[in-house]
Amino acid sequence: MTSKPRIIGITMGCPAGIGPEIILRLHGEILAGSGALAAPESGAAGWRLVVLGDLGVLAAAARRLGQHVILKPWQPGTIPGPAELNVLPLSALDPLPQPGRPTMAGGRAMGSYIAEAVALVQAGELAAMATCPIGKEMLNAGGYHYPGHTEMLAALCNSPEYAMMMAGERLRVTLVSIHRPLAEVAAALSAGAVEQVVRLTAAALRRDFALARPRIAVAALNPHAGEGGMFGHEEEQIIAPAIARVAAEAGDDLTLSGPWPPDTVFYRASRGDFDAVVAMYHDQGLIPFKMLHFQDGVNVTIGLPIVRTSVDHGTAYDIAGKGVADHASLRAAVLMAARIATNREQHNVAAPPQDDSC
Amino acid sequence: MTSKPRIIGITMGCPAGIGPEIILRLHGEILAGSGALAAPESGAAGWRLVVLGDLGVLAAAARRLGQHVILKPWQPGTIPGPAELNVLPLSALDPLPQPGRPTMAGGRAMGSYIAEAVALVQAGELAAMATCPIGKEMLNAGGYHYPGHTEMLAALCNSPEYAMMMAGERLRVTLVSIHRPLAEVAAALSAGAVEQVVRLTAAALRRDFALARPRIAVAALNPHAGEGGMFGHEEEQIIAPAIARVAAEAGDDLTLSGPWPPDTVFYRASRGDFDAVVAMYHDQGLIPFKMLHFQDGVNVTIGLPIVRTSVDHGTAYDIAGKGVADHASLRAAVLMAARIATNREQHNVAAPPQDDSC
Repeated sequence: MTSKPRIIGITMGCPAGIGPEIILRLHGEILAGSGALAAPESGAAGWRLVVLGDLGVLAAAARRLGQHVILKPWQPGTIPGPAELNVLPLSALDPLPQPGRPTMAGGRAMGSYIAEAVALVQAGELAAMATCPIGKEMLNAGGYHYPGHTEMLAALCNSPEYAMMMAGERLRVTLVSIHRPLAEVAAALSAGAVEQVVRLTAAALRRDFALARPRIAVAALNPHAGEGGMFGHEEEQIIAPAIARVAAEAGDDLTLSGPWPPDTVFYRASRGDFDAVVAMYHDQGLIPFKMLHFQDGVNVTIGLPIVRTSVDHGTAYDIAGKGVADHASLRAAVLMAARIATNREQHNVAAPPQDDSC
Repeated sequence: MTSKPRIIGITMGCPAGIGPEIILRLHGEILAGSGALAAPESGAAGWRLVVLGDLGVLAAAARRLGQHVILKPWQPGTIPGPAELNVLPLSALDPLPQPGRPTMAGGRAMGSYIAEAVALVQAGELAAMATCPIGKEMLNAGGYHYPGHTEMLAALCNSPEYAMMMAGERLRVTLVSIHRPLAEVAAALSAGAVEQVVRLTAAALRRDFALARPRIAVAALNPHAGEGGMFGHEEEQIIAPAIARVAAEAGDDLTLSGPWPPDTVFYRASRGDFDAVVAMYHDQGLIPFKMLHFQDGVNVTIGLPIVRTSVDHGTAYDIAGKGVADHASLRAAVLMAARIATNREQHNVAAPPQDDSC
């Protein structure tokens, strides 16, 4: 461990979205000494934040919010001060984008924030990165050809096996399939995909959440878990064999169960029966997660060598610039990035060293 | 309105399930003057309960619970006393069934409880019925050839259009499809089915829940409501046109919206934005409902001329007879039956008379 403060990089996301204003709100809250990030028990004491973004955009957002803020350019290798909003200026958009009106120049800029954040975490200058929302259309128009954040990060880290975890205080969910029409979910389900996500989930619970013997529940695909084949056969043909294989290789260090009826397994996890639920498709996992964590949910990319968390909302162009966006998810994302980075450090001290290079 | 007490009939359900013991627990709670049913503000004051069941089975269950109870045979047309557990004896099983071991004789018996309850509500002897869980296999073996409770009730009432509503204090959900493999959900979705369930939901909110101008949200089928066609086309091709048709015919007395992204619409309903959500498939609606109402959810059959509520759990053969079953859902089902019956009475006084015969 070093004595210099550990730093979390926040990427500003789309300059025309709500990223700039939620960053300013979070900074204001920390300066005022309020909010969970400022609390000593948060585990985030001693951490510093830097923004990978655009000084002009942040200054304009501060003017709109009527918020006094000291913006200070930061360079990697230096120690960010505690009283300013430290910004690594990666773009200087001119003209400034209008809130709610994304541009191609903004797309290029937001892609550069992400790429630089990955490089700085890999280089050890940042301990973790937390990302603000991007617009996928302009990201692509700006020259970054990825379906979204997660795929871009996986490519930059050369990580072929990764998954999305939605994490909150009361529920953690990982997804076997994500952005797929419901009509294709069943046909696309494979034992290999289930096994991969279960393994990634187990590894993340151990390394990122400090749970030595994680308890993972796997959701079924069909109502009543298929009711013995009456409502579908994927449970017996795909999910149960996948569970059996991972359970056999994992041994006593993993409590793996399922396939459970989907309508009760998430409730059971939320009351403490399981540390995470592996969901078969997007809404199966996201519906219960957002029932509990609509405001403060965090999206964690698991399987990457770097620590990356994200807000679980979008650019919200409809309210951008109006000063009404809620920064609770960003606060939670930063807190979780700090916790995961700390847990990985301790995990790597306790366990045989792992190769953490990208 | 008559001055004699209004009566809710509780069908005992499978004699080998948890029905008998949750009825006894509810009765004990009411006698002790505790629980929501005994509270004057429950709207259930002045109501009496009768059980359509088996005196011997209830007596044996009381012995197992160590509960002192006065069981009294009741006949339709008489006023049930307040201190006893009034039972219309429709079976006298001998030998008594073992808890957890359903029999064909028990199947015949549970079918008769349901059929008689329907007849007594139709005849005006009962104001409503609340049902305890049945085992579908033995129901069929006993000569009642229905997939389940709901279908049997619809057939007895000659009601071709009906739907299942899950109702609780914080969320109401109706289902366009119920027990169907996930792989078949998208292909089976039709605008006609969506329209029918939306109309039934609107009628039930008005007549049963006293909401003159209901606010109904219709969930999408696909993640992000299809994201403009990227993740599916059912929203634009099936759901949106169905919504438009019902909205046009309903006019100002219905606030109908959708198709909404599934992962947030249930949360929004739970915070008060909507009076009910129409879900496209079983787990889409049941997962969020059980997050909030795992213990006290009620299943209401809407579209029937009679008032029927049900517990939202099964026979629980694994714990039957052990005295650990929770009666919260039965309590909620009885309370909701009383409220719906009261609302229908007032609705029928205020509005042109409706044909309420089966």
